[in-house]
Amino acid sequence: MKFDPRAGEDTLWRYADALAVPDLGLTLGEGRTPLIRASAEGEDGLLLKVEYASPTGSFKDRGAVTLITLARLLGAERVVADSSGNAGTAMAAYAARAGLRAEIFVPGGTSGKKLEQILGHGAEVVVVEGSREDTAEAAAARVKETGAFYASHVYNPFFHDGVKTYALEIFERLGAAPATLVLPAGNGTLVIGAHLGFTALREAGLVDRIPRIVAVQAERCAPVAAAYASGATEVPPIRPGPTAAEGIAIAAPARGPRMLEIVRETGGMVITVSEDEIAAAHATLAARGLWVEPTGAVAYAAARRPMPGTAPGEIVVAPLCGSGLKASL
Amino acid sequence: MKFDPRAGEDTLWRYADALAVPDLGLTLGEGRTPLIRASAEGEDGLLLKVEYASPTGSFKDRGAVTLITLARLLGAERVVADSSGNAGTAMAAYAARAGLRAEIFVPGGTSGKKLEQILGHGAEVVVVEGSREDTAEAAAARVKETGAFYASHVYNPFFHDGVKTYALEIFERLGAAPATLVLPAGNGTLVIGAHLGFTALREAGLVDRIPRIVAVQAERCAPVAAAYASGATEVPPIRPGPTAAEGIAIAAPARGPRMLEIVRETGGMVITVSEDEIAAAHATLAARGLWVEPTGAVAYAAARRPMPGTAPGEIVVAPLCGSGLKASL
Repeated sequence: MKFDPRAGEDTLWRYADALAVPDLGLTLGEGRTPLIRASAEGEDGLLLKVEYASPTGSFKDRGAVTLITLARLLGAERVVADSSGNAGTAMAAYAARAGLRAEIFVPGGTSGKKLEQILGHGAEVVVVEGSREDTAEAAAARVKETGAFYASHVYNPFFHDGVKTYALEIFERLGAAPATLVLPAGNGTLVIGAHLGFTALREAGLVDRIPRIVAVQAERCAPVAAAYASGATEVPPIRPGPTAAEGIAIAAPARGPRMLEIVRETGGMVITVSEDEIAAAHATLAARGLWVEPTGAVAYAAARRPMPGTAPGEIVVAPLCGSGLKASL
Repeated sequence: MKFDPRAGEDTLWRYADALAVPDLGLTLGEGRTPLIRASAEGEDGLLLKVEYASPTGSFKDRGAVTLITLARLLGAERVVADSSGNAGTAMAAYAARAGLRAEIFVPGGTSGKKLEQILGHGAEVVVVEGSREDTAEAAAARVKETGAFYASHVYNPFFHDGVKTYALEIFERLGAAPATLVLPAGNGTLVIGAHLGFTALREAGLVDRIPRIVAVQAERCAPVAAAYASGATEVPPIRPGPTAAEGIAIAAPARGPRMLEIVRETGGMVITVSEDEIAAAHATLAARGLWVEPTGAVAYAAARRPMPGTAPGEIVVAPLCGSGLKASL
């Protein structure tokens, strides 16, 4: 990877030299999100990356711009995606920007705000009753049937390649790797993407180590945490309870084994947060002027705890993933 | 003004040397919004500044951060603001961030999403039935009664001083002044702020002229346009009709005369857009992946028309002011 940020470039293409796809000019102005202090006593080393200040209101824009660029490179005219919400709105927006038709498969119960946005971008919405996995299967079946480009944020490595800019921006800003990254984990997009970014930076000789990666799940839907605790390398599906963190409520994460490898290789861990902790973290953030959807409070809920293995003053970075304006009233 | 952007600074304090208040560390990561091509045939010179990719979802963050910094400098413990919505959410968020108590006066009919956010940040909300002007009067009365800091985005020049960074960012990005700025005009925050910014850049010898400033109002609430057309220097209040552009529905703009001066001095004009044009502009933006509230489509609705006095290829910049996620379903 070549790390040579383009001066004066406002978008993700600031890191064009580091990305797997060429810059075709597709952008909504994604990337370059702020890194700010959490700003409370006892949280001096904790920095928050305000990912919700993104064009569609979540960090998913980072992967959508590279994945839809790939679709254009391959000459696709139609894309199919499946998502519990944020990836769907991102994919719909970038497909619209690229002039591609999009069909977004969403699980029943997806918030009205997200559906409104997907439809506003001209995409077709297919609501699939059943589990998140049923939604993915329905999308895959449509891809097989129509030959559309499958814009999967779970399986397609070009999505993770875009998300790796999360790591590049942190490095560019700090001039070093932080001690720890605390990341929410559902399908593992950020865990895999951030790890990819710091791995590339290490290979380029710019950092000498990859930060410890701490993955966080909602207690009520924590298959990766269960597998981690039991020392397993596979992630058996679980039966989830209801959680406010709908964006990471993935009972059978396809990339679960990779998440376990990353957490173990980097000396991190997988931890869970309760519904009460998510609600309290959300309230604390709001009281400090930061407005996230419930899923967006998960990483902070974990990062605000004393983190075993982190020395005082060491830098910990947690993302605020999705805008509070996205949540239903 | 000293224009010496701080390298590597993600926030509005990148322009600390140019601002009237010192950097006290107050930030939510505002500023540095993307400038992207509108990207349609015949709109080659039209650039859109994606102001909705801001911490609270609108450009008002630029003025809120400087005004609340001033409140802290003055030792205030309480602030009072009045707003039809976006300024209120911004003021509530920055007051929360600064540890100040806030009371936000809003007109009846303000969207539920905006109220939810203001309350979430711990501010008190006072709903005032009547006109927008009645809301301002109620706020002013409370200020008189309590001695709270009046965080007015209409009257306080420290708010406009923050908004001037809209101009500084455009200049930094383009390396020059664009030919024309097309700006929505209700209370005139952006018209006054952008003019202030380019005036400072001209005084610093960095640009040789101020862009033509074209102010845009909704046809159904266009007191400044009416005064402009009649050659007046004052702006008589009008009786407004209902408009989707709630954010600029100001029937008696206090800074109306100043807006007229700015438009005339810069060789610009005041124009109106119909409700149909606003709706069509909103739909076109959405079809290109850009998600704004109706008011956020007003500047684009005007800028996409052939603009008298603009030569082909000249650069015109219009803002997308507020997020579509803020609008009610």
